[in-house]
Amino acid sequence: MKKILVLLAFFFCATAKAQQSDSLIISKIINQALTNGECYPRLNYLCKNIGPRLSGSLNGEKAVEYVNQLCVEQKLDTTFLQPVTVPHWVRGEKEQAYYKVNGKKSAVAICALGGSIATYKKGICAPVIEVHDFDELKVLGREKIEGKIVFMNHPMKSSFVHTFDAYGEAAGYRWATAQYAAKYGAIGVVVRSMTLALDNNPHTGAMGYNDTIIKIPACAISTIGADELSAAIKNNSQVEFYFRQSCEKFPDAQSYNVIGELRGSEKPEEIIVIGGHLDSWELGEGAHDDGAGVMQSLEVLHIFQNLKLQPKRTIRFVAFANEENGSRGGKQLLAYAKERNEKIIAAIESDEGGFTPRGFSFNGDSLKMQKVMSKQELFYPYDLKYWENGYGGTDINYLKEVGALLIGFVPDSQRYFDVHHASTDVFENVNKRELELGAGSMAALVYLLSEYGVNP
Amino acid sequence: MKKILVLLAFFFCATAKAQQSDSLIISKIINQALTNGECYPRLNYLCKNIGPRLSGSLNGEKAVEYVNQLCVEQKLDTTFLQPVTVPHWVRGEKEQAYYKVNGKKSAVAICALGGSIATYKKGICAPVIEVHDFDELKVLGREKIEGKIVFMNHPMKSSFVHTFDAYGEAAGYRWATAQYAAKYGAIGVVVRSMTLALDNNPHTGAMGYNDTIIKIPACAISTIGADELSAAIKNNSQVEFYFRQSCEKFPDAQSYNVIGELRGSEKPEEIIVIGGHLDSWELGEGAHDDGAGVMQSLEVLHIFQNLKLQPKRTIRFVAFANEENGSRGGKQLLAYAKERNEKIIAAIESDEGGFTPRGFSFNGDSLKMQKVMSKQELFYPYDLKYWENGYGGTDINYLKEVGALLIGFVPDSQRYFDVHHASTDVFENVNKRELELGAGSMAALVYLLSEYGVNP
Repeated sequence: MKKILVLLAFFFCATAKAQQSDSLIISKIINQALTNGECYPRLNYLCKNIGPRLSGSLNGEKAVEYVNQLCVEQKLDTTFLQPVTVPHWVRGEKEQAYYKVNGKKSAVAICALGGSIATYKKGICAPVIEVHDFDELKVLGREKIEGKIVFMNHPMKSSFVHTFDAYGEAAGYRWATAQYAAKYGAIGVVVRSMTLALDNNPHTGAMGYNDTIIKIPACAISTIGADELSAAIKNNSQVEFYFRQSCEKFPDAQSYNVIGELRGSEKPEEIIVIGGHLDSWELGEGAHDDGAGVMQSLEVLHIFQNLKLQPKRTIRFVAFANEENGSRGGKQLLAYAKERNEKIIAAIESDEGGFTPRGFSFNGDSLKMQKVMSKQELFYPYDLKYWENGYGGTDINYLKEVGALLIGFVPDSQRYFDVHHASTDVFENVNKRELELGAGSMAALVYLLSEYGVNP
Repeated sequence: MKKILVLLAFFFCATAKAQQSDSLIISKIINQALTNGECYPRLNYLCKNIGPRLSGSLNGEKAVEYVNQLCVEQKLDTTFLQPVTVPHWVRGEKEQAYYKVNGKKSAVAICALGGSIATYKKGICAPVIEVHDFDELKVLGREKIEGKIVFMNHPMKSSFVHTFDAYGEAAGYRWATAQYAAKYGAIGVVVRSMTLALDNNPHTGAMGYNDTIIKIPACAISTIGADELSAAIKNNSQVEFYFRQSCEKFPDAQSYNVIGELRGSEKPEEIIVIGGHLDSWELGEGAHDDGAGVMQSLEVLHIFQNLKLQPKRTIRFVAFANEENGSRGGKQLLAYAKERNEKIIAAIESDEGGFTPRGFSFNGDSLKMQKVMSKQELFYPYDLKYWENGYGGTDINYLKEVGALLIGFVPDSQRYFDVHHASTDVFENVNKRELELGAGSMAALVYLLSEYGVNP
């Protein structure tokens, strides 16, 4: 009995000591992120000297080169490009739109949805019919919809506290209204922008066609435009809508996942993936979505290097290609991992903006989750108290297939959809300290993962 | 024994039921704040139609009228103005400054510190000497300082996770450098702005003189200006600094605390104070500091009214006068409470900006604190997990004398000092949802205080 007590005492002392030393190292990591970070100027360069970088674009190539160069300059143990074949869709000329009541035209701000076909060169004009969900479409049926432009006015709900929940509830209307409306003979669709803000900025984003149904052009209208259009429809028996867009789909193009690694000293075969996606929509600069996530993730490795922290397990930074309209970068990383029979123990993605960090969401084996979550109190001094089951990230989700514990970095979500996929997603709307604290939070979690792994 | 068990079971069931009903009501409160709030348009009006409102100014009077009118329109049970005599300091013409090396002048952005005297009409120019803290001043002594302008270049430390800690460490240099430097014969001081951002905006704020020491003019220099000036001093043996400001102190003026109440239905004599301060510095619009706090506090009562929630205890909204340069509104409320022998059980202040709420900090009787903090899990679904001993607020702190539990509303602090006391503290930098969530959080806490009081 005495022996057991001594052993227990030893165990608790050792645990307490490890906790103390972990807490000290985490404090150094956060300090480093806030006082010696590189992610903010790097994001500045990406946004201002390269700019938006949709898959297949020249900017996309430049961004790959830039991030690759950063990895090389940073002297990571390994740096390489992983080829990814990506779609190549181009917006074309600035879109035009108006609604017309009794011959009077009122211009509204729109943008083509990503993946949409063009309208006729001179645009399309037709009576517009407003609906709020797919059920309304169905009830109206072909009789009321044929030959018309469907206006899907489904606002994101401000009652959700977490804005991603509001997005989740509404984004299906952006994706699928064109295919649903085409079934009933609509000739085009205009979808209310996915944002909680009331402003004049249309928000783009991916939409999808159904190969068995005719393709019709789809655009997003600003929320102010949507409210105006809705009011016009309410007050007039006949409202027409006109829009013109010249987007075009080209053959697939060559792009790359940019990968850089710090090799683990004790279990190099166990890999922790950390990343964001390098591609972005082209209305803004892809600052929050997701230049921030890329630069924060690279900063994680930088912090290890600056502090001369030797990770026990391998840390793999990935700047994913093509999250926005194809997710091919994520799929490619999975294929690569399977081919090599890699042991990716965990994957962290930052793709919810460079805002003040709140914590992490987890998806995977519950015992592994419990093990990682059991360390959460180490993060409380930094107000990182959100530790919940939840979403990992679009790019890393594929890695579930190889058993990785998926971890989503969760920043404060209140401002994200103000700028998401819009012209306002620019560097000026990223706060330096918020971005840096996020990088530090991720580095702290990666440190624990690299020290202790995920096996219970 | 059985009886006791039955009683215990009854007690736990009743507690669980109350918790459930509290959780439902809090969810309605937050929903109301996010979907039916008035604080954002009201703040817009205050910022854009009235603007900055320093004590003693015409705008200050207009702001009092506006908030009083809101209370009346909102049909509170009681609305009244509490006279407060306030200081009246005026900035005067736009300040000018440059540093001079070998005859070459380089302009820098400055502003007079609040309460400072003017320079001579044509300005003052003298050799400038850089220090980083009061110890350096002391070591240099009269010999090195006499006749010079002292440049206090003490940066706020970015290593602090909570920016108010960084402010606390540094703000004394804004307040007291003039009196310390004058002791050694300096003829003026220029203080590095209190912000963590590197930009061209000087940040004002209160400074103080010591009546036994000669008064010298004091200004704040932007952080970019401070870095440039510091580099010039490092690279040159003789650097001169010039600045001109024409600020002036007038006789005290009449102002008011604006007060509005919802009367408690069961214990009306127990009062819960909730407020922010209505005065603001005049470089920006006083949006975060502290129009946000005023409008959030008034929204708390609005939410009770909209939901037809009858508070058991009295809720007193206060728009405090003169927090920035005198705190006379806070003192006056205390005097009023003492005169009437009022029972103010708790006081909440929102004066850290209209950012995403994180929680509350408490100051007062530990048993009362424990009682209130024991409810914190009700706030976890809204990510309000910061519940710590700490600061109440400048205006409410006086109420400690009458036994009030002081509660500081704690929003995320990362962006606050970017705009604090600067031209960037404008409505555009307030996010609607962040502001509203803050109001909802405060209303939820006020609801619990009004239901259960603070006595253990």
